[in-house]
Amino acid sequence: MTGAAPRKSFGSDNHAGAHPAVMRAIVEANAGDAVAYGADPWTERAVGDIRRLAGAQGEVYLVLNGSGANVLGLGLLLGRHEAVICAESAHINTDECGASERILGTKLLTVPAPDGKLTPELIATRLSGRGDEHFAQPGVVAVTQSTEFGTCYSLEELRAIKEFCTSEGLRVFLDGARLANAAAYLGCTLADLAANADVLSFGGTKNGAMGVEAVIVMRPGDAVNAPYLRKQHMQLSSKMRFLGAQFNALLADDLWLANAGHANAMAARLAAGLTAVPGVEITYPVQSDVVFARLDAGHIAKLQRDWIFHVWDESASIVRWMTAFDTQESDVDAFLDDIAAAAGAVRA
Amino acid sequence: MTGAAPRKSFGSDNHAGAHPAVMRAIVEANAGDAVAYGADPWTERAVGDIRRLAGAQGEVYLVLNGSGANVLGLGLLLGRHEAVICAESAHINTDECGASERILGTKLLTVPAPDGKLTPELIATRLSGRGDEHFAQPGVVAVTQSTEFGTCYSLEELRAIKEFCTSEGLRVFLDGARLANAAAYLGCTLADLAANADVLSFGGTKNGAMGVEAVIVMRPGDAVNAPYLRKQHMQLSSKMRFLGAQFNALLADDLWLANAGHANAMAARLAAGLTAVPGVEITYPVQSDVVFARLDAGHIAKLQRDWIFHVWDESASIVRWMTAFDTQESDVDAFLDDIAAAAGAVRA
Amino acid sequence: MTGAAPRKSFGSDNHAGAHPAVMRAIVEANAGDAVAYGADPWTERAVGDIRRLAGAQGEVYLVLNGSGANVLGLGLLLGRHEAVICAESAHINTDECGASERILGTKLLTVPAPDGKLTPELIATRLSGRGDEHFAQPGVVAVTQSTEFGTCYSLEELRAIKEFCTSEGLRVFLDGARLANAAAYLGCTLADLAANADVLSFGGTKNGAMGVEAVIVMRPGDAVNAPYLRKQHMQLSSKMRFLGAQFNALLADDLWLANAGHANAMAARLAAGLTAVPGVEITYPVQSDVVFARLDAGHIAKLQRDWIFHVWDESASIVRWMTAFDTQESDVDAFLDDIAAAAGAVRA
Amino acid sequence: MTGAAPRKSFGSDNHAGAHPAVMRAIVEANAGDAVAYGADPWTERAVGDIRRLAGAQGEVYLVLNGSGANVLGLGLLLGRHEAVICAESAHINTDECGASERILGTKLLTVPAPDGKLTPELIATRLSGRGDEHFAQPGVVAVTQSTEFGTCYSLEELRAIKEFCTSEGLRVFLDGARLANAAAYLGCTLADLAANADVLSFGGTKNGAMGVEAVIVMRPGDAVNAPYLRKQHMQLSSKMRFLGAQFNALLADDLWLANAGHANAMAARLAAGLTAVPGVEITYPVQSDVVFARLDAGHIAKLQRDWIFHVWDESASIVRWMTAFDTQESDVDAFLDDIAAAAGAVRA
Repeated sequence: MTGAAPRKSFGSDNHAGAHPAVMRAIVEANAGDAVAYGADPWTERAVGDIRRLAGAQGEVYLVLNGSGANVLGLGLLLGRHEAVICAESAHINTDECGASERILGTKLLTVPAPDGKLTPELIATRLSGRGDEHFAQPGVVAVTQSTEFGTCYSLEELRAIKEFCTSEGLRVFLDGARLANAAAYLGCTLADLAANADVLSFGGTKNGAMGVEAVIVMRPGDAVNAPYLRKQHMQLSSKMRFLGAQFNALLADDLWLANAGHANAMAARLAAGLTAVPGVEITYPVQSDVVFARLDAGHIAKLQRDWIFHVWDESASIVRWMTAFDTQESDVDAFLDDIAAAAGAVRA
Repeated sequence: MTGAAPRKSFGSDNHAGAHPAVMRAIVEANAGDAVAYGADPWTERAVGDIRRLAGAQGEVYLVLNGSGANVLGLGLLLGRHEAVICAESAHINTDECGASERILGTKLLTVPAPDGKLTPELIATRLSGRGDEHFAQPGVVAVTQSTEFGTCYSLEELRAIKEFCTSEGLRVFLDGARLANAAAYLGCTLADLAANADVLSFGGTKNGAMGVEAVIVMRPGDAVNAPYLRKQHMQLSSKMRFLGAQFNALLADDLWLANAGHANAMAARLAAGLTAVPGVEITYPVQSDVVFARLDAGHIAKLQRDWIFHVWDESASIVRWMTAFDTQESDVDAFLDDIAAAAGAVRA
Repeated sequence: MTGAAPRKSFGSDNHAGAHPAVMRAIVEANAGDAVAYGADPWTERAVGDIRRLAGAQGEVYLVLNGSGANVLGLGLLLGRHEAVICAESAHINTDECGASERILGTKLLTVPAPDGKLTPELIATRLSGRGDEHFAQPGVVAVTQSTEFGTCYSLEELRAIKEFCTSEGLRVFLDGARLANAAAYLGCTLADLAANADVLSFGGTKNGAMGVEAVIVMRPGDAVNAPYLRKQHMQLSSKMRFLGAQFNALLADDLWLANAGHANAMAARLAAGLTAVPGVEITYPVQSDVVFARLDAGHIAKLQRDWIFHVWDESASIVRWMTAFDTQESDVDAFLDDIAAAAGAVRA
Repeated sequence: MTGAAPRKSFGSDNHAGAHPAVMRAIVEANAGDAVAYGADPWTERAVGDIRRLAGAQGEVYLVLNGSGANVLGLGLLLGRHEAVICAESAHINTDECGASERILGTKLLTVPAPDGKLTPELIATRLSGRGDEHFAQPGVVAVTQSTEFGTCYSLEELRAIKEFCTSEGLRVFLDGARLANAAAYLGCTLADLAANADVLSFGGTKNGAMGVEAVIVMRPGDAVNAPYLRKQHMQLSSKMRFLGAQFNALLADDLWLANAGHANAMAARLAAGLTAVPGVEITYPVQSDVVFARLDAGHIAKLQRDWIFHVWDESASIVRWMTAFDTQESDVDAFLDDIAAAAGAVRA
């Protein structure tokens, strides 16, 4: 981290720092006083812009991190007694230490989902026992876009889920920690995506922010308790202007889309390069900023001496290589060279 | 906020932005990659420095805001069934929207406390019913230093509470959102204060940070579940280096103490000046960065046209005037002039 | 308890056993099989009868005890983020070990209330800060009828609270663990009382049942989640017929009212007798099945050698003497004799 | 239910009423006053007897139902942040409406388990991520004896789980709603079973009680908060003597074991008879009071016209036939006749 010219991390999109424009906006917001807790012009602008971008009639709430956005978003939609249907691989199920259960007291009804994507059919498998007081009653379906495996729902797939849920009296929460990557991949607007959710999160942190997420409520009146729950969930920032400023920078000139598009392109470059490396198998369609690949355990070990990345599934010898807004083509190429070398091959 | 030369806010110490040194540290930390969630050198340095400064044998956890620090700190000390004794005026009781009840499921056993300060005698009033399963069982006493009224416990007072609590099998949590102001006022070290708590928070945000607090565990082994609870409480930051960097700046050359000392001095200057203003009564001893005063409701209204501050108790006509690390002597003097003018007086 | 002719307890109305008619109903219900969890004729009859008696358009749910009824009833009315206004002396605040906070995550906003009774004026004192996300937001007002001090709200007083609450957007929960005693005292119907609540409990246990309470929802649709919350709160009985049978017995020929009226009469007899005992001061109006009295600490100690009752407030030398459906006139008279003897007096 | 000579229900062991001896004990306990909340001789005797029977050094707590016992038992063993490993088919996962998540805020880490039984190997599959704050941290393993599928762990199997858990720093909770059936099947003592748990429940309700369960803490000091949690969980009965009396009856002359042995024998008789019925396949080993069987959907429908039982898995055409302490041989034989008739066969 401190040595000269360290290799770019492929470990996570949150190993990157803040985008220079984000940092600039933060510094500029640090001028004089601002009323605390959101009644400042930076926050007001951010909230208004996100609302418009998402086509939301409801309100937008800035929060401090992804778990905070997920738990607040779910909490807004859940009846006190209700459960959540989600993919087994969903971040809320696997990576938040049980925050939804702890904070909301809700049960997650998980579904094994190929490629991390739910379908009406998969959701339907968790609907038995509705109306029977002994069984946890699903109230919300949580989808993740893009998914933990880097795959993206098409707009048609999202629409089918939303329609199914509506017909079943279920609400849809969309975990959009990497929603920008999906918009960039699908070539659609934020509103196109948001239209298929009742409440969604829109992630800044993995997209070049220092640390900020938005919770977007699509319909007015759906979330009258949101300000109080945000406070109770310890997600209300006092010097909120610094959250607002981050989104101001990301939304100016569609930087959010450019950042995501760039990260996606770097993952695609990596995936393309891997086709020339024998012994490396890409395990999921590459549709955002991440490549999952299977390769020899010995080769993984060799690569890890010089590069930072996660071994996703040790027993299956699968790794996760993730790009970010600041990954350079030369980083990808150098990484590819070393992957090839580790695999005992020479890249053409 | 955006006009030319607005008047300094006396509304809150979090109306101020970040201290320039803090902002510089944040910008400097934004170089290249860093492993997420705290395994970065900025965080490691901050955590180590705070540990030493507090004389803690246990661990230190950086969190995102004051409510997060309070709820995590209490949660570390509370048995699953236990209740908290605190002053009626405690922030956890009055200003966190019931976060402790919601997140921890605990009951707050409140005590009316003059000047916001608990005493062994006051604590003892909430100890009836121990051992009786019908009554909420106190497990933790929460003290605030400096208090919501700007008063400070002396070290002797804190020690008496700690000794009483130990003898009663109670643990002490210290809400130190403004602990720096108390250290500056008392002329003592952080360790002097921390020695009287089992777990405490140490606030950065109100002391010139952008947004960071530390939860300090005094004894090793007292908080093995802290990392998990921090995550479940949605207080784990991914790009943690930016939290660490803020404390790095505050701790360098004792900036934290200088900031607090300056804010205190500005409050003292304000208080001193008020003695010359007829019709203004200071209602609490001024021992940190805040002055509570009673004045005519009409005069309050007049002042509020030009200055930002809180009316603390409308029926009693009491206002809160708060200074910050960046309040200037000239701000205080200008404010005093206007207070005097509003009160129909002319300052000498 | 097992010796010959022990003295009648004045400790609590739940020191009594079950009324013979209740026990008979239980024994009779023990014939053959019955579908579990409430789909049995005993439960259906009980629920239907209570519904009619209360004039409820919503549903009725049988639960296992008073805390269960209170927590379920509050949970039905509370938004996820909301708080409860109640008297400081309310059972939910003082005698349930913090169950409401633990199970519902709600905050109790308590009000010192003379005679245990709330008023619109007292409720209004806890309404500041509505709409401000930092403050706990009251959603429900909990009244107890009859109160912990044995006092009863008049119907006018209840109506005034309900109207005030409606105008303020607050819902009313009525803790009716001793509602029968209030109906007997006021000479009104259950419906007269229920009309002033949104959800109420109707206690069986203290009125001659073995152990059963009802939660009554006044409006249809107000409690679609009630069956699930009852199950989650562990208040769903499998062999529910035995709960239903208890209410069947209590409701037949208005036994509930006769039991309560008798207990009230015994308390009144005790109170009347006490007027002739010097040194004994009755501290609250006697309006149900309990007498609170102040007498010399030494006299209390002497009495406790032979009689079971609670010292309510040791420092104030106040005791609680409670009657039950099975207290006899001779029990009261014998107790009065001993009180007089302990007080060094001789009853005329 | 009220008609003449209805057919015995094979729907559940809680369709049965209370055993006559239990009812007698309840009636006998209804003599005079008894101190509330457990300080009565019936409760004291029950608690002492269960303690001895289980070989427990810790305490025993009577509660109101099975969910209450499970949630209290788990709560005693769980750290505030911890999760529970259990079989996917466990009652706490499938039949309690998410009570563990709602009341304890814990996450259930479920394992698909053939025959409903966990093994060290199956438990081990949920142990990845220990020490990583992002992952739910298992603290307790919940086993059910006998299981939801009517199977029983052998003592060796239980011991292997306990040893594995001890070596892994995990505690064992045993859901013993039908523990009596396991003791009868295995021919072992309650202590033999209890020795492999840290905390266990011991069910009365399904074994001839009206409604009572015991939570048994094996080691002293493991559950200092149990009385308070029982109260907070709304599982503390005021007229507790009636809970104690039920266990007094069940424990006298080993009625609990006789009841369970009888129910088991009736299930065995049913299973034996089924071997002569073509087209009926028993799907799990019959080791307690229940037979799971697969038969033609049309035959199921025909049978349901006259008999009460559950279709366990509609898509797989699997039914659950459950016996009870009061199932007669003639009930089983009549049922067998009708099963055979429905299946188009004639029993030999």
